[in-house]
Amino acid sequence: MRIAFLGLGKMGSAIAGHLLKGGHDLVVWNRTISRTDELAAQGAKVASSPAQAATGCEFLFTMLMDDAAHEEVLLHPEGAVDALPTGAVHVSLSTISVELSRRLAREHASRNQHYIGAPVFGRPNVAAEGKLWITVAGPQSTLDRVLPLLQSFSRGLSVVGSEPQQAHALKLGGNFLITAMIASLSEGLVYAESQGIDPALYLEAVNDALFQSPFYQAYGKVMLNPPSIPGATITLGAKDTRLFREAAVASHAATPLADSFQQQMDRASKAGLADQDWAAGYYKSVKSESGLG
Amino acid sequence: MRIAFLGLGKMGSAIAGHLLKGGHDLVVWNRTISRTDELAAQGAKVASSPAQAATGCEFLFTMLMDDAAHEEVLLHPEGAVDALPTGAVHVSLSTISVELSRRLAREHASRNQHYIGAPVFGRPNVAAEGKLWITVAGPQSTLDRVLPLLQSFSRGLSVVGSEPQQAHALKLGGNFLITAMIASLSEGLVYAESQGIDPALYLEAVNDALFQSPFYQAYGKVMLNPPSIPGATITLGAKDTRLFREAAVASHAATPLADSFQQQMDRASKAGLADQDWAAGYYKSVKSESGLG
Repeated sequence: MRIAFLGLGKMGSAIAGHLLKGGHDLVVWNRTISRTDELAAQGAKVASSPAQAATGCEFLFTMLMDDAAHEEVLLHPEGAVDALPTGAVHVSLSTISVELSRRLAREHASRNQHYIGAPVFGRPNVAAEGKLWITVAGPQSTLDRVLPLLQSFSRGLSVVGSEPQQAHALKLGGNFLITAMIASLSEGLVYAESQGIDPALYLEAVNDALFQSPFYQAYGKVMLNPPSIPGATITLGAKDTRLFREAAVASHAATPLADSFQQQMDRASKAGLADQDWAAGYYKSVKSESGLG
Repeated sequence: MRIAFLGLGKMGSAIAGHLLKGGHDLVVWNRTISRTDELAAQGAKVASSPAQAATGCEFLFTMLMDDAAHEEVLLHPEGAVDALPTGAVHVSLSTISVELSRRLAREHASRNQHYIGAPVFGRPNVAAEGKLWITVAGPQSTLDRVLPLLQSFSRGLSVVGSEPQQAHALKLGGNFLITAMIASLSEGLVYAESQGIDPALYLEAVNDALFQSPFYQAYGKVMLNPPSIPGATITLGAKDTRLFREAAVASHAATPLADSFQQQMDRASKAGLADQDWAAGYYKSVKSESGLG
């Protein structure tokens, strides 16, 4: 089948590669055209615009940076949505706002197109291995068409509900728990040091004794040994925290912890840490404010 | 060898049982004497006072409720410390303040006795299986004597340092991360519900996608399905949070997250939840304040 893929950052390229290996007729587009070279060499067609990519395709996958990029690529005049055939399915893999996800559902419905929210958990190396975890939501009949494609690049998925934005809401709720883990570990590591305890030993002990989580271990290591190339940045972490808070506010739920995490990341940004690794920069900021930095 | 064991709550009884099975000459004491019956039936001697238990023993283990109980049982005139022979080792298994742990080290040193901090992670059922995780600290020569006994009722241990109170500090730092997990999950579960997402599905998805932690799974289940008999209570959680904050303050480390957790537990207590399960009661309190309770 013909699949269009818009957005070939590290995540998008890896996922598009898996779809291509599945034997599909893949058409790719990216703002920076050089990012399409590798997939083109593997047999993908390269479109000159989002609309050209979407024309005549059965599935449209997007992995774009943020809400603004989605509006520009999808919803502007001559964007992909107007070019997408009736009956086609748009699968949004990105972490976007709940509000934008609702809007995309409406825009597609008004054109007799289908829309699925399917944001992914995992870093680029996990995407390359085809082992992302996907949270997916949308009407069952559309899900049935999409799930085999999603399974081709994931280790598992959670079906959240029948409304696409629920998948995006869950993704933001997952990222909130990552931020909460980072914030808690930051305070715990600073405390450990204040008690004359080696922070690395503290981390190992609490993970052995309690969490037994590869995720705590990996993030803790990043915090204690900041990577030269950040995974996600403080700026990206702050963006997702803002989207989490906005979704909660729209549904009248209080988020005092997320509010305090946002404030910490705002202070970290003002202190020049905006482009540092989300976890390592957060810890650095907390440590510095405690006078130990 | 002759071992005295003071404090036969659910945790203490289970641990003392393992020491007894190790073939040692065990002398037990408990404030409520009926708690000694089962161990006596298995061959333990029952002492009529802490001092009588400590007299002539090589090791003294304590698993007592709180700082106040330690002062009364150990440090009051005719308490166990004055009765303990020169050269004997006191192993404190309880979660006590860093300050009390320092004081016990001084009291024992002044009597040419030895002192080891060895607080345990795990609930009574884990203690019964002999699978606690122990954080232990003290001088190496004393550790060498104690480790074989600790290994007889644990699945593993972390050696924290040469000062006994470091083990107690680490235990408080571990309990802080449990509270942080409970607080984060509480806010996340309330958020999920506000987004029309089944909280149980949210919990399962984030653990599958991210943490892959049996600990998150177990605590999340307790939060969504409050137990009829609480594991630990809000009151106990608040006590450990207070000890964490006091240890941090004494070392000039800021703990804004722990401060907010304490405030939440104080509000929960005022709302009548003091005796409810630590995790389930915390969630109930957060949910109620968000208008969803």
